[in-house]
Amino acid sequence: MSADFRADLLTSGLLVDSGVAGLYARSGTFEKVVRGLEDLVSSAGADQRAPVLHFPPVIPKVVLEQSGYPRSFPDLLGAVSVFEGDEELHRELLELLDQGQEWAGLLSSSQVTLSSAACHSLYGSLSGRLPAGGRRFEVFGHCFRNEPSLDPARMQAFRMHEFVYVGEPDGAVAHRDMWLERSADLLSSLGLPVETVVANDPFFGRAGRMLASNQRSEALKFEVVCPIQAGEPPTAVASSNYHVDHFGAAFAIESADGEVAHSACVGFGSERVTLALLATHGLEPARWSARVRDLLWP
Amino acid sequence: MSADFRADLLTSGLLVDSGVAGLYARSGTFEKVVRGLEDLVSSAGADQRAPVLHFPPVIPKVVLEQSGYPRSFPDLLGAVSVFEGDEELHRELLELLDQGQEWAGLLSSSQVTLSSAACHSLYGSLSGRLPAGGRRFEVFGHCFRNEPSLDPARMQAFRMHEFVYVGEPDGAVAHRDMWLERSADLLSSLGLPVETVVANDPFFGRAGRMLASNQRSEALKFEVVCPIQAGEPPTAVASSNYHVDHFGAAFAIESADGEVAHSACVGFGSERVTLALLATHGLEPARWSARVRDLLWP
Repeated sequence: MSADFRADLLTSGLLVDSGVAGLYARSGTFEKVVRGLEDLVSSAGADQRAPVLHFPPVIPKVVLEQSGYPRSFPDLLGAVSVFEGDEELHRELLELLDQGQEWAGLLSSSQVTLSSAACHSLYGSLSGRLPAGGRRFEVFGHCFRNEPSLDPARMQAFRMHEFVYVGEPDGAVAHRDMWLERSADLLSSLGLPVETVVANDPFFGRAGRMLASNQRSEALKFEVVCPIQAGEPPTAVASSNYHVDHFGAAFAIESADGEVAHSACVGFGSERVTLALLATHGLEPARWSARVRDLLWP
Repeated sequence: MSADFRADLLTSGLLVDSGVAGLYARSGTFEKVVRGLEDLVSSAGADQRAPVLHFPPVIPKVVLEQSGYPRSFPDLLGAVSVFEGDEELHRELLELLDQGQEWAGLLSSSQVTLSSAACHSLYGSLSGRLPAGGRRFEVFGHCFRNEPSLDPARMQAFRMHEFVYVGEPDGAVAHRDMWLERSADLLSSLGLPVETVVANDPFFGRAGRMLASNQRSEALKFEVVCPIQAGEPPTAVASSNYHVDHFGAAFAIESADGEVAHSACVGFGSERVTLALLATHGLEPARWSARVRDLLWP
């Protein structure tokens, strides 16, 4: 494992620096690993017979609001603003631009924001009564987190691949537990030295510290972690979460018995798993062991 | 071809409405077509030996500014704002949220904006002197356009797959012309009733009308158009553009002889080509002709 993994990624061209911390272009080789991984994870969940949904990088602003994200993670969200002015306001914008001054103040709030988690978009479409046994979905999406960082495993824009369950409480717990084991097994089969740990989300502020502490003591969130950068603690590459009735209540989703629905999801961080593979097996996927290559590109 | 293509797409589940005009989730079947198409376009450009770059949906704000997009298309851009406050400002945000009032005014401009065109990100990394003969790139990216519409072919979030040339003027014109023919041939081979037309970008305002008119009279932009919705004019599914020295000047890119570099790009709209295929061949890709299926999924 390299002492300066980020420098190696840039030198090899697997990532290309954009000039903004945590924002990169990815090479064709990097994407080939992501695609193989997406297919492998899909295969691992094929028995779920879950409809597949691909969400765009932006979501309705009302969905972000309903999800509770601005309450719990205001520092990480990204809102979108747009220009709704006439030619006069446009001249003002151009003057500010020419003077190198901030012009975003002339913009208005859009009906969309950046997506913070792939499954948020899903809950917005599930309001109402679910069938008995709940529903499962396989979900892909681009996410944004406002946390500029030089750690290549902490990108501002990244992808999540999730399996989501919405329905009865016991179904949600079973989904979380089954996927925790299955995701750790899948990542181990790729030769990654993963471990499973209890974890918490990075809730904001003092009230957030209590939420994080509760989440841990109730063991709602587990992460599958893997070393990526030498000398640093291992990084979460997947997580399996039981949301209790958070999203059910937020989006008025009911289980078949008329109770507020419970939900759970497992999420694989596509870029993070790819980085873990590159850190573990080297920067040339064509030279990875036949066992790993056959799993990713059967 | 259907009288209400949007309704058919939603009923079939190929697209799922988000509640915001022009914003959809896409089904696994829809994405299977997109992926097949991406591979087919990549094959068609394999002789270019162009390095592949996948760009995230957000780009550095300075790149958007340098690209000239806020000058020419202010009404289409999407800026990103983030929360940089403390717990007190957060309480204010939550109060506004609880009262159903606009809270985006408490946010600050981010260092990133939504990407408006896949190739913008590329030019930002090319400042300096190019080798003789210029350089070619194959580029993938998510784009955002602030144009809420019920036309399924006019999404707010969509993907572009491009081949870009940056270098000498004659190389740029040759790239544009070669790809105009090649893209029309490729789309015809998929059974799409395409035509090639001179076109212009939707420049903003009165000054914009002149820019659009110049672009047309100099025949800088060509579109490959295809009928998608019965009774409506055909929609651009690909375009081939000669930018003259616009991006070379904006990003200080020089050709080998020290002149301002010229550039050209061909862009395929992944969602639009997919919609054209669905409109032309029906909503069940598994039942498309063997010829089309073999091209997409060899």
